[in-house]
Amino acid sequence: MLAETLAAIRPADPRALAEARAHQDRLTKPRGSLGALEEVAIRLAGAAGASPPPMPEPAALAIFAADHGVHARGVTPWPQEVTVQMVANFLSGGAVANAFAAQAGVQVTVVDVGVATDLAEVPGLMVHKIAYGTEDLSRGPAMTVDQAVRALEAGIVVARDLVAGGARCLITGDMGIANTTASAALISVFTGKDPAEVTGRGTGIDDATYNSKVDIVRESLRVNGLAGFPGTAPPPSEALRALAAVGGFEHAAIAGFILYGAAARVPVILDGVIAGAAALVAAALDPAVTDHCVAGHRSAEPGHSAALVHLGLRPLVDLELRLGEGTGGLLAHPMVCAAVRVMHDVATFDSAGVTEKPV
Amino acid sequence: MLAETLAAIRPADPRALAEARAHQDRLTKPRGSLGALEEVAIRLAGAAGASPPPMPEPAALAIFAADHGVHARGVTPWPQEVTVQMVANFLSGGAVANAFAAQAGVQVTVVDVGVATDLAEVPGLMVHKIAYGTEDLSRGPAMTVDQAVRALEAGIVVARDLVAGGARCLITGDMGIANTTASAALISVFTGKDPAEVTGRGTGIDDATYNSKVDIVRESLRVNGLAGFPGTAPPPSEALRALAAVGGFEHAAIAGFILYGAAARVPVILDGVIAGAAALVAAALDPAVTDHCVAGHRSAEPGHSAALVHLGLRPLVDLELRLGEGTGGLLAHPMVCAAVRVMHDVATFDSAGVTEKPV
Repeated sequence: MLAETLAAIRPADPRALAEARAHQDRLTKPRGSLGALEEVAIRLAGAAGASPPPMPEPAALAIFAADHGVHARGVTPWPQEVTVQMVANFLSGGAVANAFAAQAGVQVTVVDVGVATDLAEVPGLMVHKIAYGTEDLSRGPAMTVDQAVRALEAGIVVARDLVAGGARCLITGDMGIANTTASAALISVFTGKDPAEVTGRGTGIDDATYNSKVDIVRESLRVNGLAGFPGTAPPPSEALRALAAVGGFEHAAIAGFILYGAAARVPVILDGVIAGAAALVAAALDPAVTDHCVAGHRSAEPGHSAALVHLGLRPLVDLELRLGEGTGGLLAHPMVCAAVRVMHDVATFDSAGVTEKPV
Repeated sequence: MLAETLAAIRPADPRALAEARAHQDRLTKPRGSLGALEEVAIRLAGAAGASPPPMPEPAALAIFAADHGVHARGVTPWPQEVTVQMVANFLSGGAVANAFAAQAGVQVTVVDVGVATDLAEVPGLMVHKIAYGTEDLSRGPAMTVDQAVRALEAGIVVARDLVAGGARCLITGDMGIANTTASAALISVFTGKDPAEVTGRGTGIDDATYNSKVDIVRESLRVNGLAGFPGTAPPPSEALRALAAVGGFEHAAIAGFILYGAAARVPVILDGVIAGAAALVAAALDPAVTDHCVAGHRSAEPGHSAALVHLGLRPLVDLELRLGEGTGGLLAHPMVCAAVRVMHDVATFDSAGVTEKPV
């Protein structure tokens, strides 16, 4: 299923890109006056292979939840059971992601890809559990390559089901206590940056915990024999090995979710640092996936900025959010819709009888 | 009516601010993890005098349109008739503001406060015309103080009517070819910054036109005997005189629109540089108005950044838009709603049974 999905991915269509760019310049607004939003609309036209691109709604958010063996190393003061407690909170509609999704009219699906306790499949929850949390990435591989592929395929299945259900935009979300540690390790590997540059304070840790977290990320790379892929893209087998070694099940699943969106030409709005790390994995498997992604926001985590630079994506929201859950992606969704709606609704100088600025 | 509105304005309620801050810390999210959006929700609680504050919807956008005598000086390549052509475009739903408003579910009202040609009152258009455009601000006062007060009061009436019609959030919009010139002059006066620092290229001008525009702004201050009010707030009579000397009818009307929002405790989302200049006038009349404002976005115009710094407001959207019409404010509205919805919908650690991080 992974191979099939990868085989279906195409880069942006240059003709649709050119048409979209030309159309932007005919609309009743000064050229370029919508700034970065013009680029978003043009990017989505390229991704869809059509100008104007289809409206990216309805959108669906999938929150991939999993636990992490590295939690035992004390990388966060939050207890591990908060992962499953937050899953319950999502399902009862009490989390920030639910409030943001309600505001944006976005459907929320929670996916258990590796929570440490058993969860029953209930409405709003899909169970694709690979294991009861990963192994400790600082002692050896967090998961096997086979588990990594199964988690990727879980993300593909979730995206496929959501698109089959009518979703025309996919938003990534995550929940997993300790998952910024795995994100930092992945980002260090895929960008070649030092762990100290890409490790952050997650949901809030003191200096001692932070220093220890950087050491643990560094240790995870050494123990797993990961030298980093600076500059050049790794071969897919190496990318999968790195994902398995230091990733989380939610990272793998989000990477698969992104791959399916790209294959189906349904745009994917990336949330924060966990999505950024997952997108690096997906882009290593096929660089064309980034043509189908929009960076919803820039999180306060330093590794996220590094990932976005590496991916060549400009975030739409930059308000120091550091919550995850898909909250940054949800905030960006109305802006992405607004950008595309301009291409559908706005009059041209000719049609509106507005005098164009003399060139 | 102006005096009455000013008398009704109150600063943020410290008790509601404190309650909102404490409530944020009880919600099921790491403290501070919503970044600048927590501050938005807290600010709106202070403005409303209630925590949680009422949801800022439905919202209403008012696009104040007017022409400018300084257009004759060649500050822009766009012909003056584009103002009235764009009014027609707004009324037929073909402008970017219409597309963004449709996306956000916001009602659009266009207000003629000084368009150079006669317009009939039709659905969606309110006529409060003060004159057929201002006089040339580089030769003398753009308007009389009496006209400035009447334009302020037109903005008050529009805001009052929209709030009476159910609006729970006001968004500022503008249309007026050459109005970035008047904005630069106002911003120079109210921030004390040199015209060269606060004059921009508006919707797009070449170097020669830009240099001439800076000279014209400088000339307008000299001709009108405006030394600038660096550091200290001017007395209201001086603020009105400055507004009349170098403002536009839409600046005056937007200032009144903001004043009414503050008086009625209905939050105002400011759009770009024209709104920023108008907010400086409103804040000079009563500094408490800024407690009721949210900066929707930061425009590409350098004067807008200066105005926001002076007002102490942080913009929510920062994507190099330079269109006006209320487009930046419209993009911010869903985020402001999301920020407030968190205070209404999100569970607390206690109620959701989520373990809080040990302090």
